[in-house]
Amino acid sequence: MADINSKLEIGVTTGPIRGSRKIHVESPRFPGVRVAMREIALEPSSGEPPLRVYDTSGAYTDPSVTIDIGAGLPKLRHDWIVGRGDVEQYDGRAIKPEDNGQLGPDRSGGVPPFPNTVKRPLRAVSGRNVTQMHYARQGIVTPEMEYVAIRENLGRKQLKEALIRDGQDWGASIPDTVTAEFVRDEVARGRAIIPSNINHPESEPMAIGRNFLVKINANIGNSAVASDVASEVDKMAWAIRWGADTVMDLSTGRNIHDTREWILRNAPVPIGTVPIYQALEKVGGIAEELTWEIFRDTLIEQAEQGVDYFTIHAGVRLAYIPLSARRVTGIVSRGGSIMAKWCLAHHKESFLYEHFDEITEIMKAYDIAYSLGDGLRPGSIADANDEAQFAELYTLGELTKRAWEQDVQVMIEGPGHVPMHKVKENMDKQLASCGEAPFYTLGPLVTDIAPGYDHITSGIGAAMIGWFGTAMLCYVTPKEHLGLPDRDDVKVGVVTYKLAAHAADLAKGHPAAKLRDDALSRARFEFRWRDQFNLSLDPDTAEQYHDQTLPAEGAKTAHFCSMCGPKFCSMKITQEVREFAAKQNSAPENFLAAEDVEAGMAQMSEKYREAGDLYIPAAE
Amino acid sequence: MADINSKLEIGVTTGPIRGSRKIHVESPRFPGVRVAMREIALEPSSGEPPLRVYDTSGAYTDPSVTIDIGAGLPKLRHDWIVGRGDVEQYDGRAIKPEDNGQLGPDRSGGVPPFPNTVKRPLRAVSGRNVTQMHYARQGIVTPEMEYVAIRENLGRKQLKEALIRDGQDWGASIPDTVTAEFVRDEVARGRAIIPSNINHPESEPMAIGRNFLVKINANIGNSAVASDVASEVDKMAWAIRWGADTVMDLSTGRNIHDTREWILRNAPVPIGTVPIYQALEKVGGIAEELTWEIFRDTLIEQAEQGVDYFTIHAGVRLAYIPLSARRVTGIVSRGGSIMAKWCLAHHKESFLYEHFDEITEIMKAYDIAYSLGDGLRPGSIADANDEAQFAELYTLGELTKRAWEQDVQVMIEGPGHVPMHKVKENMDKQLASCGEAPFYTLGPLVTDIAPGYDHITSGIGAAMIGWFGTAMLCYVTPKEHLGLPDRDDVKVGVVTYKLAAHAADLAKGHPAAKLRDDALSRARFEFRWRDQFNLSLDPDTAEQYHDQTLPAEGAKTAHFCSMCGPKFCSMKITQEVREFAAKQNSAPENFLAAEDVEAGMAQMSEKYREAGDLYIPAAE
Repeated sequence: MADINSKLEIGVTTGPIRGSRKIHVESPRFPGVRVAMREIALEPSSGEPPLRVYDTSGAYTDPSVTIDIGAGLPKLRHDWIVGRGDVEQYDGRAIKPEDNGQLGPDRSGGVPPFPNTVKRPLRAVSGRNVTQMHYARQGIVTPEMEYVAIRENLGRKQLKEALIRDGQDWGASIPDTVTAEFVRDEVARGRAIIPSNINHPESEPMAIGRNFLVKINANIGNSAVASDVASEVDKMAWAIRWGADTVMDLSTGRNIHDTREWILRNAPVPIGTVPIYQALEKVGGIAEELTWEIFRDTLIEQAEQGVDYFTIHAGVRLAYIPLSARRVTGIVSRGGSIMAKWCLAHHKESFLYEHFDEITEIMKAYDIAYSLGDGLRPGSIADANDEAQFAELYTLGELTKRAWEQDVQVMIEGPGHVPMHKVKENMDKQLASCGEAPFYTLGPLVTDIAPGYDHITSGIGAAMIGWFGTAMLCYVTPKEHLGLPDRDDVKVGVVTYKLAAHAADLAKGHPAAKLRDDALSRARFEFRWRDQFNLSLDPDTAEQYHDQTLPAEGAKTAHFCSMCGPKFCSMKITQEVREFAAKQNSAPENFLAAEDVEAGMAQMSEKYREAGDLYIPAAE
Repeated sequence: MADINSKLEIGVTTGPIRGSRKIHVESPRFPGVRVAMREIALEPSSGEPPLRVYDTSGAYTDPSVTIDIGAGLPKLRHDWIVGRGDVEQYDGRAIKPEDNGQLGPDRSGGVPPFPNTVKRPLRAVSGRNVTQMHYARQGIVTPEMEYVAIRENLGRKQLKEALIRDGQDWGASIPDTVTAEFVRDEVARGRAIIPSNINHPESEPMAIGRNFLVKINANIGNSAVASDVASEVDKMAWAIRWGADTVMDLSTGRNIHDTREWILRNAPVPIGTVPIYQALEKVGGIAEELTWEIFRDTLIEQAEQGVDYFTIHAGVRLAYIPLSARRVTGIVSRGGSIMAKWCLAHHKESFLYEHFDEITEIMKAYDIAYSLGDGLRPGSIADANDEAQFAELYTLGELTKRAWEQDVQVMIEGPGHVPMHKVKENMDKQLASCGEAPFYTLGPLVTDIAPGYDHITSGIGAAMIGWFGTAMLCYVTPKEHLGLPDRDDVKVGVVTYKLAAHAADLAKGHPAAKLRDDALSRARFEFRWRDQFNLSLDPDTAEQYHDQTLPAEGAKTAHFCSMCGPKFCSMKITQEVREFAAKQNSAPENFLAAEDVEAGMAQMSEKYREAGDLYIPAAE
């Protein structure tokens, strides 16, 4: 990755994305609400306006901010949170040795604690509810909602002049323009969430919902087998650089608490976790020794740190577990299998299900969103859309309504492994069962036979289910099923999912999505190579691939490409045909009638004969 | 690629694919018809039978054949072709200097001519028609059809015992078992083709049609900018090693004739070309100087060499060209733009359209199949499904029927760049216009914004359109739009398209497709790592990715993987739950009632406490 236009600073990649600059759009309504975007400037001679794109990268791509990961990011939302007058600081839970997992009493091998930890966390004042859903239902537009509206609205104004709503949205309600009021309404009815723990003020507000841009999540996290804190923070920064909208910290093994603190304090995107992973570490990995008390304590621990959404596998009910016994791949969700084991061992209903309303009580005091886990999701094509999976989904629908009774935000996790012809049924059933709460799927993979390429097998399913209405797509890297992703894998996974999410936005007819495709296609057609690179999801790779065949600097301004060579380019021929028509003042309709076509073609023929001199020789 | 289980022999990769062996299935009906397949043996202790998979790799993976690319492959079909008594040898067209393109009179810089060229080619005896379609319509089952039936039928017998037809086939007619008679009928009605030039006896018969397995094509070919003959032959062998069903030689620039001869004599798969590329080279790259005579002579030249299908852009009619003038990316097909330029320059109808029946006359004398080119395909999301594209498609439908009047086999090329919501319309219109002739699409790419990842943007569209009924998918490599693919790109492109084609087969409900997914999923669930690698489309990459995290040999037999570590594996938990149930003789239905569940769980809990000793330490 030698040619990445960035520098390493304390191990984290910073600096603008090639060809882009960070801009901020100010809210006319909320002073201090400045929404970060990325602007791609195009060749001045092209007459093209700069293109604004959605920007998840936070301060890491802002040269005016000095990154110090030991200090953490600026607390963007702090004043908004405190300004509402419904939170209080309190003496939080003391950090316990077991919070960092399997470390021995001497803590040797542990990561250093984050230096700048907030000593006294926030929570809702007794009797108050601090969720965005609660405000929304009270008719209150928060700065977070305003931020989301400006952020999502990106580029739509440009398109407004000739707004063509070309898509099949399968019943979504995507507006021409996103207003803060629209955001409020979507959050109020549960169709969108803004994950925003009051103890994670560093996060830049974003919405997950079917009527907004399709989002993607990247998983990071150390495991018992490998990883360290520096590389996890860097993976987070690296994932958001390329477009991850949220990041889940799935750490297991040692140092869970401290690793999470480093990640949260440096994360401008919502962070999700699966609290049962840490709870299991606290009981030495013995699922049947889990208790409600240990789990509850873990929720508080993570709530105080600022986790924005929790995956809770409360739909794995005792009665559903036998439904999985005849599957080809049984229960593949880690959380699901832990709960299944607990239920069987105790022959009891899941404590997550039993204590669901208490969990909701905790979550509303911090504004943590539910990500209701699909513990019985299929782990193979053979097990897709079976009774176990859908039984759990109906329960998730029931739990959604219970969470909404307390105004707690909810999204629903989905599969997994599903052949193409069964993908839509997942979306339809989820919409019907869960009251249009946002769907958040892992792929799905549309075949099992390509380990090493599961970012692609799952990218196919992700694009499709995103089109059908899934609000967020959880990425899969090339290492899925095989090993732990490294930096390159994280990037490939994120870019694959960005293109899948974008393909979904296009197919849904999102009013601004096509702007970027069209700008890139025009650049391609006009041989503006630099613009083509800069408009792409991964400018570094695009330029690198181009240069492998034609490294000369002149080839980036040449009116041909390596596929066809100088004399044989179809784009060039079309362009010349069109330019000729324009010169002759003949409208396309008159093309065939124009006598001068032939004269013009004779001129062009002359030009072609000189082609060897006009273009860069092939060998260069 | 250091760990590929193969050796380089005269620059071409040979040797079995890891974990597989070549087998041959003999026809009970046609002596000498021995159909090559690949068999993946699974761990004996698993009790799983070996799995047979479709094999496109030819002799290169057969250790019993010595590869000598200067001699070419054995002529598998020679006796079948000659045995029909309807062909004659004749003095072929003499090779002319312009056949090898831009070489100067001293031929310096040219590739060596293929040493073992057949001096006298075959053609149909005057008044005879040697196409597979002609035989099929006469009710004749050829050895080629028998070969195809045995080849396609792969694995279906195994499934027959519990045949579950699970899929949405969108009106296809996929049989439970493929018989030679079924193949004959599909070819007779034009729903499938068996590309099989009588001068390419080295090719192993294969069918392209909606009711057969979805096929993929890989493009190779030198250009004016780069490449040489050795690397092109190796790219062909490399592409078929990983699953390319046909290969198109898209060479431009120098050495076109000689390069093609090397490829054909060494190709066990059908080879396609775009003859207009070579014709253009013969007139120095000046499209308007093309003539019917030069084009016709090029067809004969390539027919005698043994090209199995020709892309002919006969649908780019004069009247359609203005329809492209307001597009964002105009005409992106090279053939299409050449013909557009010719038509405009001469203000005449396309000579390909005008001489279509004469072209068909030539093709039937050698059994070359048409691949009717979509010269007006969209080159961007903005241009998808427009008037120009569909006007041409209707003409391709008209030409299909004209070709069928002479019993010449036809497939239809399709786009290109199409957002997801417009993909199905392409398939529906093609089926309606072209009498169910096989559709052969390039992707389509579902977004334009990811250069460097267009194997994925197009793999999404390819999987979808394959599901809807496309018979063959033309691959796209990561270098698309940027540069020339190298060996690694070819492999990534082929594997991506194999997984897309397989996902399509699964979704269509192809009766044997799921066998491989299920075998791999069982191997995954049972921690048979070697079986999981060997069953995958790319065993080398799967194993390499696994070993990056857990290189120790023991980790390949360990009952955990690197994602979760030894104590935290959901698959293991499920498996233990299931084993426990089996031991207790309790049917899944009785799980919840079984008193001994708790006792069993207590035992397992003990086992977990010893986990650190039972499993390989994480650091290894």
